[in-house]
Amino acid sequence: MSDIKKVVLAYSGGLDTSVIAKWLQQTYGCEVVTFTADIGQGEEVEPARAKAEAMGIKEIYIEDLREEFVRDYVFPMFRANTIYEGEYLLGTSIARPLIAKRLVEIAEATGADAVSHGATGKGNDQVRFELGAYALTPGIKVIAPWREWDLNSRERLMAFAEEHDIPVDFKKAGKKSPYSMDANLLHISYEGGILEDPWAEAEEDMWRWTVSPEAAPNEAEYIDLTYVQGDIVAINGQSMSPAEVLAELNRLGGKHGVGRLDIVENRYVGMKSRGCYETPGGTIMLRAHRAIESITLDRESAHLKDSLMPKYAELIYNGYWWSPERLAMQKLIDATQECVNGDVRVKLYKGNVIVVGRRSGDSLFDASIATFDDDAGAYDQKDAEGFIKLNALRLRIAARAGRKMK
Amino acid sequence: MSDIKKVVLAYSGGLDTSVIAKWLQQTYGCEVVTFTADIGQGEEVEPARAKAEAMGIKEIYIEDLREEFVRDYVFPMFRANTIYEGEYLLGTSIARPLIAKRLVEIAEATGADAVSHGATGKGNDQVRFELGAYALTPGIKVIAPWREWDLNSRERLMAFAEEHDIPVDFKKAGKKSPYSMDANLLHISYEGGILEDPWAEAEEDMWRWTVSPEAAPNEAEYIDLTYVQGDIVAINGQSMSPAEVLAELNRLGGKHGVGRLDIVENRYVGMKSRGCYETPGGTIMLRAHRAIESITLDRESAHLKDSLMPKYAELIYNGYWWSPERLAMQKLIDATQECVNGDVRVKLYKGNVIVVGRRSGDSLFDASIATFDDDAGAYDQKDAEGFIKLNALRLRIAARAGRKMK
Amino acid sequence: MSDIKKVVLAYSGGLDTSVIAKWLQQTYGCEVVTFTADIGQGEEVEPARAKAEAMGIKEIYIEDLREEFVRDYVFPMFRANTIYEGEYLLGTSIARPLIAKRLVEIAEATGADAVSHGATGKGNDQVRFELGAYALTPGIKVIAPWREWDLNSRERLMAFAEEHDIPVDFKKAGKKSPYSMDANLLHISYEGGILEDPWAEAEEDMWRWTVSPEAAPNEAEYIDLTYVQGDIVAINGQSMSPAEVLAELNRLGGKHGVGRLDIVENRYVGMKSRGCYETPGGTIMLRAHRAIESITLDRESAHLKDSLMPKYAELIYNGYWWSPERLAMQKLIDATQECVNGDVRVKLYKGNVIVVGRRSGDSLFDASIATFDDDAGAYDQKDAEGFIKLNALRLRIAARAGRKMK
Amino acid sequence: MSDIKKVVLAYSGGLDTSVIAKWLQQTYGCEVVTFTADIGQGEEVEPARAKAEAMGIKEIYIEDLREEFVRDYVFPMFRANTIYEGEYLLGTSIARPLIAKRLVEIAEATGADAVSHGATGKGNDQVRFELGAYALTPGIKVIAPWREWDLNSRERLMAFAEEHDIPVDFKKAGKKSPYSMDANLLHISYEGGILEDPWAEAEEDMWRWTVSPEAAPNEAEYIDLTYVQGDIVAINGQSMSPAEVLAELNRLGGKHGVGRLDIVENRYVGMKSRGCYETPGGTIMLRAHRAIESITLDRESAHLKDSLMPKYAELIYNGYWWSPERLAMQKLIDATQECVNGDVRVKLYKGNVIVVGRRSGDSLFDASIATFDDDAGAYDQKDAEGFIKLNALRLRIAARAGRKMK
Repeated sequence: MSDIKKVVLAYSGGLDTSVIAKWLQQTYGCEVVTFTADIGQGEEVEPARAKAEAMGIKEIYIEDLREEFVRDYVFPMFRANTIYEGEYLLGTSIARPLIAKRLVEIAEATGADAVSHGATGKGNDQVRFELGAYALTPGIKVIAPWREWDLNSRERLMAFAEEHDIPVDFKKAGKKSPYSMDANLLHISYEGGILEDPWAEAEEDMWRWTVSPEAAPNEAEYIDLTYVQGDIVAINGQSMSPAEVLAELNRLGGKHGVGRLDIVENRYVGMKSRGCYETPGGTIMLRAHRAIESITLDRESAHLKDSLMPKYAELIYNGYWWSPERLAMQKLIDATQECVNGDVRVKLYKGNVIVVGRRSGDSLFDASIATFDDDAGAYDQKDAEGFIKLNALRLRIAARAGRKMK
Repeated sequence: MSDIKKVVLAYSGGLDTSVIAKWLQQTYGCEVVTFTADIGQGEEVEPARAKAEAMGIKEIYIEDLREEFVRDYVFPMFRANTIYEGEYLLGTSIARPLIAKRLVEIAEATGADAVSHGATGKGNDQVRFELGAYALTPGIKVIAPWREWDLNSRERLMAFAEEHDIPVDFKKAGKKSPYSMDANLLHISYEGGILEDPWAEAEEDMWRWTVSPEAAPNEAEYIDLTYVQGDIVAINGQSMSPAEVLAELNRLGGKHGVGRLDIVENRYVGMKSRGCYETPGGTIMLRAHRAIESITLDRESAHLKDSLMPKYAELIYNGYWWSPERLAMQKLIDATQECVNGDVRVKLYKGNVIVVGRRSGDSLFDASIATFDDDAGAYDQKDAEGFIKLNALRLRIAARAGRKMK
Repeated sequence: MSDIKKVVLAYSGGLDTSVIAKWLQQTYGCEVVTFTADIGQGEEVEPARAKAEAMGIKEIYIEDLREEFVRDYVFPMFRANTIYEGEYLLGTSIARPLIAKRLVEIAEATGADAVSHGATGKGNDQVRFELGAYALTPGIKVIAPWREWDLNSRERLMAFAEEHDIPVDFKKAGKKSPYSMDANLLHISYEGGILEDPWAEAEEDMWRWTVSPEAAPNEAEYIDLTYVQGDIVAINGQSMSPAEVLAELNRLGGKHGVGRLDIVENRYVGMKSRGCYETPGGTIMLRAHRAIESITLDRESAHLKDSLMPKYAELIYNGYWWSPERLAMQKLIDATQECVNGDVRVKLYKGNVIVVGRRSGDSLFDASIATFDDDAGAYDQKDAEGFIKLNALRLRIAARAGRKMK
Repeated sequence: MSDIKKVVLAYSGGLDTSVIAKWLQQTYGCEVVTFTADIGQGEEVEPARAKAEAMGIKEIYIEDLREEFVRDYVFPMFRANTIYEGEYLLGTSIARPLIAKRLVEIAEATGADAVSHGATGKGNDQVRFELGAYALTPGIKVIAPWREWDLNSRERLMAFAEEHDIPVDFKKAGKKSPYSMDANLLHISYEGGILEDPWAEAEEDMWRWTVSPEAAPNEAEYIDLTYVQGDIVAINGQSMSPAEVLAELNRLGGKHGVGRLDIVENRYVGMKSRGCYETPGGTIMLRAHRAIESITLDRESAHLKDSLMPKYAELIYNGYWWSPERLAMQKLIDATQECVNGDVRVKLYKGNVIVVGRRSGDSLFDASIATFDDDAGAYDQKDAEGFIKLNALRLRIAARAGRKMK
């Protein structure tokens, strides 16, 4: 273990990663660089500086990555209407590649030979961090303390902290949430505790970002979303940066009880796990993006995207954001978004996201053709006969040859 | 046109198909057999008999197909979590193959050489009827009056009716809905009228099967759904037939404002069209089926199904239910459902369908492995290192060879 | 028919399209512009000028499109290792989009309002020409004489020609091939005649571009192909343009009996048809391209391409080259080719194309890892255990839950 | 290591697995059961008995699995026209699931708690053996000596053998092939040695099952293959069992220089590796199966199969034969084969497999429709216009909206 000289740690400032910092110093006898990022988790990141300094950390990186996170990760993913297993909006998955990238960039900048993180050996996050790190810096070493050490209970962890004068906020530790949580500008997640019984309903006081539908306002609220090339650039006519868009949609969605999700998902490491998620802004974005595509995207492009989406979602879930196949798929996805411009009007009401209108200067909706009224010859109904006849030809030949279709 | 001797008409008993019946008699000089089916559209079918008799129809088929419809069409489709273009539950599409099948079966039984329907030349339904008919009876002739005649306005149609003593319910005709509608046990749809402007919000009084979320009860309602091999067999512990299940879920969903949808979709004939749909029971079924699968279905089977679903949905939407490729896909889908057994608890509240619990004797959810607590060796976290290392190998080799991943 | 003023005709100079030119003048009373392209079919195009002039044609376009054809159509298609139905290299399909594009461009340049072609109403080519024309110039009119006229037998065609003083080469017409043929730089095809019996072996004297394997040299020939970004840029170290590459590979393949194919394929219009093809250069290119990709392309990129290829091939076969979905797929495909650089050594011998070596400065083949000898720690075999264990986890859980896998 | 009581070893009778048997006895202090199968590798299996006995093995299983291998593994795989990465016929991959199955069945029969194999930690075979074992018997233990021991050079292995009186055939060992080989009724493979340089051509004397095309007979040979439900049941009219079919096709192909392959493939464990393969019978079967499908299989079923094939091939290559997703896909594949009946005539000549004819009582090839001659109204060419018009509609709407297609 003596060949590690310096390690960059993804450091939240909390108890677990503080213990890791100390454990790394002690176990590897190496220098530790901390990296703390604001990706919209809703907690101050600056306090991490003092905590790191108290442990003798010399190189401390604290960064606000919210704009980069939404612009380069969240928005590209939503261009594909990405959902994992029909339900999950990939809130945790999409934040990991950015952290992995910064970890190895900081390793390069500081001359570190390893990176470290606080993800356990059972979850997906270890995979996402490490695949990203290896893909970007193939020679990097990765230290995953949860797979190595024997501090695998709350008690041992606390004991280690106490023993090594780690500044634990005992008041906070005392009332620790029974859930394992993760948050960023896209979502907050809950696992563990009573959720480990998939028949047990989540408790109301678990949820943090949204009110319940029951507690949401009795008045619906309409919002207009403006799209340019598949991304939202304005809300109710007001231009916003990507992070501002998502923050505002989180506020609106949260207020109206939008975006709670309770699922059992299949982890890449092979087990099923129960997770609850709040994704208020993302839930609005998914519906609205489909709506703007519905009038601007060609049918076959849309179907092509739909056919690739499960694969694309799986790639992101499994940690392959930084991979040639994800990059190639992104080229296809982005190529379809050039004309995905226009406005979507959405109604928010007690948990519902209801699309009520969509319009675009790039619309492919042609009322003069689709109309039930006289179309003045825009469409010749007789064409349908030949269309059906030739599409039926192979079926008729098969039926005549005695094939049974029922 | 004289070579048609007898034609079986899909007859609703309404004005349009009454005019068609008369027009067929007149234009083709042929005998007309009417076929009227109860597939849960919510209107009496028996009155069609008197109307048909009044036009001199000798062979009149009136059938209750609700159980067959749900058992053999709706349920198999829901086993695949089928959605078209991310939103549409295919309520109209899935009813057409059954009608097509009965049309050609009745043609065979009555010695008819043709079938006829009242679908227009712009829509998908003509394709679905005719592909089905040709696939099952390759020599059948199809007459699609809307593509042939010149009665292509309301006024001409009414004039023809009056001229030929067709028993129009003028009171009803007078207050005719501004929408083109279609209903069956799975859904009711609306097209045309102000919906032809995709920016215009649908009017509240258009909706017929569901209350608005605003008007729904202030108290949530929990229901338990029991699955056997991917199909619901009981609600709240009470065994029900397929049609009973769907009718009861429609009642529950409708009461709680569940299942309204407003979309622009891509028709098979090449145009985009705005449609509004109410699918209360289907909306519940989709969420609940995903939930029961989430604990009983193997990950890769689930992902395989997800990757095929867009294609399967497209087949059904486009009218290829009666095709060898749909049958082959159904084999795959059904093979995955053998162990999709158990219960799902769902909460209905003002438009929301919230899954709160799922349990199964065939569960693959293994809490002893997934737990955040001590797992007593059920899972060796060290395995994750090798798993990640080998999954990363190709990426590291590529990166070392100078490939850029960002 | 009087509203057509000027029509651009895809004119080969042969009997059929000469008759069409005359028929168009006569039937539509319109001006005819002829367009004759050299796409490597192996016949002089210049003689078409005199023939067109003899019919009073004023605007005559004769163009050498060989380089454009190979560079912008053939090469991009081969980047995807494209094969239709496991066998067919799409030699006819890939030429049509270029002709369609030039037809509508010339229509624009000459102020023509229509285009016309000599493809029949049973085949794929009409679809390819017309979809391309409509996609590029949505208001264009298309005249397909074979679907309109009554000259649907050789005799009537000859009679019409004679009657209208069309300069038929009677000597040539007399010994007309029993096959319907199409040729361009990528291939030559044969249909009809005895091939309409799929059990009948094609006659040896049908084949025109290749010797039979039996008649090929008894000495094998080795060639080296150099790739840059997925395209061949040199043969045996000699730089060549795209059309030169394909011409030289045709010469080499033809000499060694490479590239004959005899299949029954499924046409887009719904029928099966027997076709024989000679694609000497393309057959070499397909094998060699896979070989250069085998050492330069990442596994998952390669598998992604393979999974999309059947769809991409179908698009091209069906005539959707000029479509948003093909363009989006091309982005993905081309993105994977950036590092597909290097050399492939191929041995040609009596019909065989045998890859014997491949090398690249961008190789991902890492002998130090793959070796059966000591790898000096490049790969830790113990990693495989965790890799297998976690990949097996879901299977073990399922088996423990009683799932039957056999 | 003391908790293993009895282990079933996949035992070839050769040096490596003999050393493993001894090493297992010594290292684990456990009983060893040997399992030796004839799957057509072309070597006697009975001699393994004496060798095992000499090492004190009490339970010795020697089985002829050739029929089961071809019937239940090779044939089902060929129904899908399965090829990995466009080239590889999966000869090694498809044999492993059968071995895995028998290993765990024998473990159950003998009360063993573990299985063991001689595959290295770098290859795919370890994965295939172990995934299969775990999927069928989730509680089984697997011992992979090559990942555990330190005998990782030829010299150490020989020393161990000598030291433990393992009956080495020194004469044979002395002239050991420089290649790592694997053989079964479907193929023989070569890896290692000079093949580790992908630019080096394989030496002629490496190949064992086929003559070179150069050395093959100067006379072509025609053979007729009869299919029932996608499987070959007779050659030249003579009924044969599955294993007989494959053995005879190997003989014929080998004689005519058919089925050599030299590729670089992507292993599941993440590296690229060079492999040479001889698959004479399989190469014939692949071409012939496509040919019989070409006249009996519906277009969309065929395309559906083609779109799934890469995934199916990947599953088999990666070791997931015993998985719910493979089983579900097999249902789809097998459902398409019901009418894949008839005869294919193939010409073998110096490495070439040339399909020259195909016929079937279940043919969907309808010459009366496809003909270039008068079709007596079987097909109405005018239908094509509507077919094209509606397929073009979305493209025209897009073009009119200003979308650029080129």
